[in-house]
Amino acid sequence: MKVFDGNVTSATGFKAAGNAVGLKKVKKDMALITSEVPAVAAGCFTSNIVKAAPVLWDMEHIDNKICGIAVNSGNANACTGEQGLADAKTTAACLAELMGCNEDNVLVCSTGVIGVNLNMDKLLKGVKITYPMLGDDAESGANAAQAIMTTDTYPKTIAVEITLDGKKVTIGGMAKGSGMINPNMATMLCFITTDCAVAKPLLDKALKECVADTFNMITVDGDTSTNDTVLVLANGMAQNAEINTENADYNAFKEALMAVCKDLAVKVVDDGEGATKLMEVHVTGAATVEDARKIASSVTSSNLFKAALFGEDANWGRVLCAMGYSGAEFDPMEVTIVFRSEGGEIKLMDEGTPIVFDEELASKILKEHKIYIDIMLKEGGSEAVGWGCDLTYDYVKINGDYRS
Amino acid sequence: MKVFDGNVTSATGFKAAGNAVGLKKVKKDMALITSEVPAVAAGCFTSNIVKAAPVLWDMEHIDNKICGIAVNSGNANACTGEQGLADAKTTAACLAELMGCNEDNVLVCSTGVIGVNLNMDKLLKGVKITYPMLGDDAESGANAAQAIMTTDTYPKTIAVEITLDGKKVTIGGMAKGSGMINPNMATMLCFITTDCAVAKPLLDKALKECVADTFNMITVDGDTSTNDTVLVLANGMAQNAEINTENADYNAFKEALMAVCKDLAVKVVDDGEGATKLMEVHVTGAATVEDARKIASSVTSSNLFKAALFGEDANWGRVLCAMGYSGAEFDPMEVTIVFRSEGGEIKLMDEGTPIVFDEELASKILKEHKIYIDIMLKEGGSEAVGWGCDLTYDYVKINGDYRS
Repeated sequence: MKVFDGNVTSATGFKAAGNAVGLKKVKKDMALITSEVPAVAAGCFTSNIVKAAPVLWDMEHIDNKICGIAVNSGNANACTGEQGLADAKTTAACLAELMGCNEDNVLVCSTGVIGVNLNMDKLLKGVKITYPMLGDDAESGANAAQAIMTTDTYPKTIAVEITLDGKKVTIGGMAKGSGMINPNMATMLCFITTDCAVAKPLLDKALKECVADTFNMITVDGDTSTNDTVLVLANGMAQNAEINTENADYNAFKEALMAVCKDLAVKVVDDGEGATKLMEVHVTGAATVEDARKIASSVTSSNLFKAALFGEDANWGRVLCAMGYSGAEFDPMEVTIVFRSEGGEIKLMDEGTPIVFDEELASKILKEHKIYIDIMLKEGGSEAVGWGCDLTYDYVKINGDYRS
Repeated sequence: MKVFDGNVTSATGFKAAGNAVGLKKVKKDMALITSEVPAVAAGCFTSNIVKAAPVLWDMEHIDNKICGIAVNSGNANACTGEQGLADAKTTAACLAELMGCNEDNVLVCSTGVIGVNLNMDKLLKGVKITYPMLGDDAESGANAAQAIMTTDTYPKTIAVEITLDGKKVTIGGMAKGSGMINPNMATMLCFITTDCAVAKPLLDKALKECVADTFNMITVDGDTSTNDTVLVLANGMAQNAEINTENADYNAFKEALMAVCKDLAVKVVDDGEGATKLMEVHVTGAATVEDARKIASSVTSSNLFKAALFGEDANWGRVLCAMGYSGAEFDPMEVTIVFRSEGGEIKLMDEGTPIVFDEELASKILKEHKIYIDIMLKEGGSEAVGWGCDLTYDYVKINGDYRS
């Protein structure tokens, strides 16, 4: 697998564009992605029962072949009532007309302020003026990655290349992360395009499995947004033999898709609102994968531990505490906890017994940007990895700011 | 019911003391509570499966008649392995010896740094020098309330008086709230004493029901500590006819206990780490009480909304979002949301439709210290109230500080 600096235009047959159409004050706020031929699509959507209008639209149309996706930032079209649903449909119809396809073959995504209806004049005009800018070059994809940003401090893209059935297969993606200064939701959007030929049920399965280990294992603040969406389009233009069983090609494809999802998911956390530290929590020896995931997520979500991380405080007691209320079963008397980074490695609890540790070494380890927390249980052979960030003054500042 | 400025010494037959014995640098760190005659006891303990040693001790002995409670702050005796369990027992034995009772009739509580063994020399000496200071006056009770504080900015006490069976019955309590600067856990401890004659099963039932509506409906940061404990001692010295069925006396007693629990619970949140605002979330029209509680707790726990509250931002979308991931079932299109305070009242969403609102009025409402969030559903007739606080720079500062 070759990993390279690509994006949603890296795979054959995909075009993208990013443009500033006035939904935000100055910055780019409109992205389009199109496929030369209708693509098989798969999606994962927020578990929040308050779903934004575009999420409802996409859930209804994800089983269709997809020609294009229209994405706007600046307004999430969430909590917008019946009007919001109509606006999502109108947006899809607008791009569909330009492409000469049916609106049912177009997906839409929005991110930004919630509870305010879209400015449809600007939005539809925006789709029309952005459409001619579509290109299959890297810069067009990079523009799209910029246009979906909200409080992100940098655009998030990646691509990988593998060989399947003697054919070059590419998977590229872009994501936006958590938060909007002005104002509202922590929304995660991710778009992945591939020229792989893969049957719908296998694409669904691969995406679901990849998301479970990546996007579902990250947290910035524990707030599950109304808009979270991960979409994959697979247009088959690599001309590999279509993957329609869980064969070796499927496994290679899934591994490549996992690499793309993991790269983008970790970038989202690393660029979490106000974050200064990235934590990677490894749980091993759990009774079940579910238990391992619960423990990792509970630690990455603990405000107390996140604040300690910001303070570079080796407060391992907060790790054990968060494990204890995770809902997973384990014997606290058998827990081992290790903190490590490029600055070194230190054991803080050894099979239930606290260790008197070298504060100087702990401090050196915690000065680094990326901190690994290793949690070893003795309940079984299951494991999981989760990613999180610290809780900082800037998180409070970003999210405490007035909407206007 | 008469509410007055009392504490754990208000009820007949209870003594208390608070003292500085050197577990903290300067402040009071040791509290004792004793009953003239062995008391019926009930307790509610943390749901965290990582339970501190004193919690395990108390859970094992709560069904015994209780003569006294020894409480220390400065060290939580949590995550302290086998030594911690032995230390809890030794502490109980020390107070028991002074009182001339069995160690099995003494409870212990600890709050403070975790993962460090107690300094038992100081602690046992502390129990011995504090014991002679026990008094049944209000000042002795006030000293005890100070001695259990950690990051609390003020001691939390209350008492109520009712008449049962022609006898004056008093319930008094004290609580400590969330967090330790130096360092670790957000621990909630509450001690309630009453001279009511009440049978053990009824005391258990009343406490359980009161805690469900009060202490279990507050949150500061969502971190469930290893040490959370609510204890009630009822020594029967009011000489009312013992409550042993759910009669009118039971209801009157429960109402009074509820008032004490609610007062102390709300004080804990109001004095939450770094908090500048108190929010009270009322959910009505839910399908079940469980759903109503889930929704209220999800809103009070949302970092995004807590930060918005700190910023005095009428970000009702974050309320709806938090409701959506609460796990409760409801139709978002039927939700009404109102914010109110002494500054006024404003409707932000009306049966699923966002309202264009007066930003000036919203700002005036949110400038107040106590903010009410009314959430009206159309799923049924169940309701719940929850309390929370805002997420502030000071929360991050308090919890990001180094342990030393």
